Amino acid sequence: MIRVVIIGQGLVGTHFAVGIERLKQNIILDYGVPLGRKIPIPYKNIEIVGSYDVDNEKVGKTIYDIALRVFPKEEVPETLKDIVVKRGIHLDSLKGLPFKAEGIEKGRSLREAIDQLVDEWRSLNADVFINVITTEPAEVIGSVEKIEKRIDEGKISASQAYAYAVAEYSRRVKSAVFINAIPSPIANDPGFVDLFRRNNAVVFGDDGATGATPLTADLLEHLHERNRRVLDIAQFNIGGNSDFLALDQPDRNTMKKKTKSSIVEDILGYSVPNYIRPTGYLEPLGDRKFVAMIIEYLSFNNFKDELYIVARINDSPALAGLLIDLVRLGKIALDKKAYGTIYEINAFYMKNPGPYKAKSIAKTKAYDKLLSWLRINT
Amino acid sequence: MIRVVIIGQGLVGTHFAVGIERLKQNIILDYGVPLGRKIPIPYKNIEIVGSYDVDNEKVGKTIYDIALRVFPKEEVPETLKDIVVKRGIHLDSLKGLPFKAEGIEKGRSLREAIDQLVDEWRSLNADVFINVITTEPAEVIGSVEKIEKRIDEGKISASQAYAYAVAEYSRRVKSAVFINAIPSPIANDPGFVDLFRRNNAVVFGDDGATGATPLTADLLEHLHERNRRVLDIAQFNIGGNSDFLALDQPDRNTMKKKTKSSIVEDILGYSVPNYIRPTGYLEPLGDRKFVAMIIEYLSFNNFKDELYIVARINDSPALAGLLIDLVRLGKIALDKKAYGTIYEINAFYMKNPGPYKAKSIAKTKAYDKLLSWLRINT
Amino acid sequence: MIRVVIIGQGLVGTHFAVGIERLKQNIILDYGVPLGRKIPIPYKNIEIVGSYDVDNEKVGKTIYDIALRVFPKEEVPETLKDIVVKRGIHLDSLKGLPFKAEGIEKGRSLREAIDQLVDEWRSLNADVFINVITTEPAEVIGSVEKIEKRIDEGKISASQAYAYAVAEYSRRVKSAVFINAIPSPIANDPGFVDLFRRNNAVVFGDDGATGATPLTADLLEHLHERNRRVLDIAQFNIGGNSDFLALDQPDRNTMKKKTKSSIVEDILGYSVPNYIRPTGYLEPLGDRKFVAMIIEYLSFNNFKDELYIVARINDSPALAGLLIDLVRLGKIALDKKAYGTIYEINAFYMKNPGPYKAKSIAKTKAYDKLLSWLRINT
Amino acid sequence: MIRVVIIGQGLVGTHFAVGIERLKQNIILDYGVPLGRKIPIPYKNIEIVGSYDVDNEKVGKTIYDIALRVFPKEEVPETLKDIVVKRGIHLDSLKGLPFKAEGIEKGRSLREAIDQLVDEWRSLNADVFINVITTEPAEVIGSVEKIEKRIDEGKISASQAYAYAVAEYSRRVKSAVFINAIPSPIANDPGFVDLFRRNNAVVFGDDGATGATPLTADLLEHLHERNRRVLDIAQFNIGGNSDFLALDQPDRNTMKKKTKSSIVEDILGYSVPNYIRPTGYLEPLGDRKFVAMIIEYLSFNNFKDELYIVARINDSPALAGLLIDLVRLGKIALDKKAYGTIYEINAFYMKNPGPYKAKSIAKTKAYDKLLSWLRINT
Repeated sequence: MIRVVIIGQGLVGTHFAVGIERLKQNIILDYGVPLGRKIPIPYKNIEIVGSYDVDNEKVGKTIYDIALRVFPKEEVPETLKDIVVKRGIHLDSLKGLPFKAEGIEKGRSLREAIDQLVDEWRSLNADVFINVITTEPAEVIGSVEKIEKRIDEGKISASQAYAYAVAEYSRRVKSAVFINAIPSPIANDPGFVDLFRRNNAVVFGDDGATGATPLTADLLEHLHERNRRVLDIAQFNIGGNSDFLALDQPDRNTMKKKTKSSIVEDILGYSVPNYIRPTGYLEPLGDRKFVAMIIEYLSFNNFKDELYIVARINDSPALAGLLIDLVRLGKIALDKKAYGTIYEINAFYMKNPGPYKAKSIAKTKAYDKLLSWLRINT
Repeated sequence: MIRVVIIGQGLVGTHFAVGIERLKQNIILDYGVPLGRKIPIPYKNIEIVGSYDVDNEKVGKTIYDIALRVFPKEEVPETLKDIVVKRGIHLDSLKGLPFKAEGIEKGRSLREAIDQLVDEWRSLNADVFINVITTEPAEVIGSVEKIEKRIDEGKISASQAYAYAVAEYSRRVKSAVFINAIPSPIANDPGFVDLFRRNNAVVFGDDGATGATPLTADLLEHLHERNRRVLDIAQFNIGGNSDFLALDQPDRNTMKKKTKSSIVEDILGYSVPNYIRPTGYLEPLGDRKFVAMIIEYLSFNNFKDELYIVARINDSPALAGLLIDLVRLGKIALDKKAYGTIYEINAFYMKNPGPYKAKSIAKTKAYDKLLSWLRINT
Repeated sequence: MIRVVIIGQGLVGTHFAVGIERLKQNIILDYGVPLGRKIPIPYKNIEIVGSYDVDNEKVGKTIYDIALRVFPKEEVPETLKDIVVKRGIHLDSLKGLPFKAEGIEKGRSLREAIDQLVDEWRSLNADVFINVITTEPAEVIGSVEKIEKRIDEGKISASQAYAYAVAEYSRRVKSAVFINAIPSPIANDPGFVDLFRRNNAVVFGDDGATGATPLTADLLEHLHERNRRVLDIAQFNIGGNSDFLALDQPDRNTMKKKTKSSIVEDILGYSVPNYIRPTGYLEPLGDRKFVAMIIEYLSFNNFKDELYIVARINDSPALAGLLIDLVRLGKIALDKKAYGTIYEINAFYMKNPGPYKAKSIAKTKAYDKLLSWLRINT
Repeated sequence: MIRVVIIGQGLVGTHFAVGIERLKQNIILDYGVPLGRKIPIPYKNIEIVGSYDVDNEKVGKTIYDIALRVFPKEEVPETLKDIVVKRGIHLDSLKGLPFKAEGIEKGRSLREAIDQLVDEWRSLNADVFINVITTEPAEVIGSVEKIEKRIDEGKISASQAYAYAVAEYSRRVKSAVFINAIPSPIANDPGFVDLFRRNNAVVFGDDGATGATPLTADLLEHLHERNRRVLDIAQFNIGGNSDFLALDQPDRNTMKKKTKSSIVEDILGYSVPNYIRPTGYLEPLGDRKFVAMIIEYLSFNNFKDELYIVARINDSPALAGLLIDLVRLGKIALDKKAYGTIYEINAFYMKNPGPYKAKSIAKTKAYDKLLSWLRINT
């Protein structure tokens, strides 16, 4: 069994929970789970054992209760009634957003809060932690020493604190995996990768590669392989889920903009004027975001071609599908004792694949590398 | 030097001629030539030595004259004044289209016409033949014997007759290359591949992979690698060049529909309801065709995503850019004595890659195979 | 009360039936009913009293049963259990489509079949007849005499036979309204308009203005009012309902193409190369069709602008919403004794507004005329 | 003759100047000039007599010189060599943008600068002033007294100072027209309208209705006339001209956002969540901006339809075409002594039609009002 803890019981966490239970009960097929049955870990081996959040509207509720806010009753598996959302670390990660939130660090030191988490996780016997909290401002810290200092001071983002806690848990209890599906740099922070390696732990990250960005990566590769000269790219994203609400704040938006636009130069080998970022919040769109994109390029004989893409993409299920793989790949990494971070996995599943300064490559090339790491023949 | 003969002095042939001369004169960069400087054959080694057509408005004119109908005067290289378009084989390939056309086979046997071509080519000392005549109805013949019989009877399409002539030229004069950039099955006809192999000749084909089809192939691969379930695909193409005019005839349209829709099942591994074909002719669009596409698929948890693509693509330059590579690859194949056809080249450059029953694969995967065949490291 | 008979219990008829019942029960709001509460006839005055079809899978069933094939059970009003679909006139209107169909004219003269319908309608005391059978080949007949002759011979389309029957019913029983929501020319046939006028009956038609065509009309007006020069228009439509299946047959497709492209010159005052027609059938799209459109035009100083429109439109509900108005407008016309046909109504609600040779105008201009006919101030 | 002064010799002013000269010389047709030959003032009656700017790169140059930066030499009329760009009022209107700018108010009072302008204009015997300076932050002042006070203090935007100067010119010299084609509220400021009326002057404004906004207005009207319920609208605009560069500054962007989104509620009669604003700057797009839009609405029976629009629009020519009309309408207004502002003109030509609190209506309805004001029968 792979015992999973969800950190951030938002839409993605809820789609993950509902989806894995429905998969286990054979109610749905495994569409959107990239590796599907190509890896020999059956879905029934995945068990959700814990869930954390800081939104007062969620803490104390079961995942079942929370899922009812999104799914029709007949689609929510009863098994989710068993998992109650516990209070986690806040560290102002929801500051400025219209939620009442509070963290277990309130009124005491962050180290004490982390100790409590580690103890809770020990009793859950957890293996894999999925970080899907709301996008927060955060930056690379750089070394284990500086991370320790920041933990002492409590000057650190929530994701970083959770990553630290998972590393601690690995040191004190058992080797574990931290999957960082949001933009905060963890797998891209040499300090954190070092910390995980030292503590026999695994980290995947950063920022799950869903939506228009991986598609853009593969489109750019397509143009690149034809030696077309890309002149400009604009990519607009607008949605109505709480992630878009959060990204309306400039410092959070910057987090996304960075992970989204780095791909262009990495893939093409030259810089291109671009405008790639989440653009706004429009409530009625809900989780089914609207993407609009233009790519202009020069073809042979200096003729200019134009490519326009419009898409409607269900944001949270796409990421939840990737997480089903990442949980299983975490288990494989633990079995292989492949501690630290693994570029071959990050390159396919993440927008900003760690380790630090690793290049983005086209996702289709990353897919080949992934299969090759897994020794799967295509 | 690689001595090239253009068969069909239409838009593609003209873009090829203008483009290669401008490349040789360093007036343009090599955007749209996929391999660019990755293969060690400089553009200046390519020399156009002959051109054939059956349209009375073109035969007897120079490529320079014809290019002036499309390009502003200052962009047409003077060197094209040296090449006069000769009359080629018609065999009703322009039947039903608003052109006055006549072939050298008129009033005598097809074999005599072919003999004349072989003699002309001998005097040109040609190496590579590019077939870019207008899309014609044609079907697989199947064996060398049957091809010979059809030649005897004159019951064969123009492309097939040209292919036969190039094979004959290879037998009688020197090994040569036939690049079939239109849908007529040549590299997909076991008979022709056999004939080329026996005669120490090379054939690439069929149907140059430009426009929306290779893009669709790579998009489908992108979805496939995420295990998304494609529900339906529609791809509309409309343009105003003479190829679209030709494709308004049902039997020619069917030729394109076949090569376009075969990719879907090959890449995804299951059949998908689809509507992929040239849709119509709209004169003011000219060579800059309009493509509109929808792809619907199931993501994780059975959520349906929708992808819409709108593109404006300059049809002829795109294919001309590929031909610059194919001419050079033809030379490499001759040097390697790789007679018959070469899947690793066809798979990337062709919509319907020969040999017969070879699978379509994503173009990005084909690109890797191509580099690997060329022993180029990525 | 307005007693309505549905002719053709397909998707549109079913959306009409389900929608009007839900409107009467205040389950839905009247979105998509253009005049809404601007005209003083409440929805509860509309009563469906009869339904006709020729598909053996439908005849004998209730509208309730048929609605269950499309709507979830909880959305289908119980009141629809009372209306059983009767067998109507076939006259090969479904020929070539994958349905088993038979008409009451089988084995006897068409006049006898029409007499039977008139008798049935007498007992239903019907006021308004909605023609929503599948698009069929049909052409203008031209005079009452010729119509009579065709009825005698049985050489007439199903819609024309129904229209004749409604005129007969008006003569023998009471003034009634025939709403022709399909392309067959009825309101555009001087013979039929004459027949209706003579018999104190009303006809609206032809071809309900839903989908991309009315939008195109208003877009063209928008460009026209800015004196922009439209260069070309292409409009692709593809869907998965049985109307698209029918339109895959060339003679039916031609019916639609005519009513769709006539608007361009009427509105702009000059002819424009265009490609406007239903393009294909793609089953998984269902009733939610995909529309893709390009309009290119010259702006000031000869600069070319480009407009691309992509839409997903639920085909049948849109027409059903218009029918709610047309039924009420039919009643108003009867009260006003406005026999024959009424351009001010057709111009807004129809793609090809009768009478014969009446011009298409922009729908927004037609809307003003409609309100003015109704003496509603804006 | 109508003697015209251009204020702001940017792209729009240059397209206006080049276009009117080419129209007068019959080199181009009057596409994009809405009223064209419907009003009896020939284009040759329009004469550009002056031009103002504050960009040091432009002041002292002729319009001919400036036009060469945008148009190929053969398209720039020689007549433009006669008009030298004079230095105008700056008042920080280009602050923060990458231009070196300076105004004639530098080193003296604003009233002295205005006096100088009035004197220059007297010698030019000007009739109509076109304000096409870069979008600047500005807000309603409200009364003539407050405007006078702001002029005394020099605390006013450049457009407002120009408007004041034109009013002064009208008082001291002759009745004149101020056409405010940018978002600064002039025709929407009761103070300015009052001032113009008192001084026998005419003002049109505000913010020329080009691009996607008037199209959106007519699309919303189209939906409104079908009683469809609009759920949400997002409209993205990105371009590479200096207006988009300016709009990247938040306070300037707000100016546009206001005039763009006010139309929604005015036309539909209810508020709709929307995201309508210039979105970003992407240099290679140049003046040919990229617009992407989504509109979702409920159709009959609660079905949701989706409309996506992608457009490439040449920004500056579109506005220049409107200005050709507005100059001539200004002359008509002067002849009619219709002082103050004229809603019937503003409603069609402006995004935010004055007077203050006047409602936006669909442009197609405004067009009818315009023709009716002009007593032109449709």
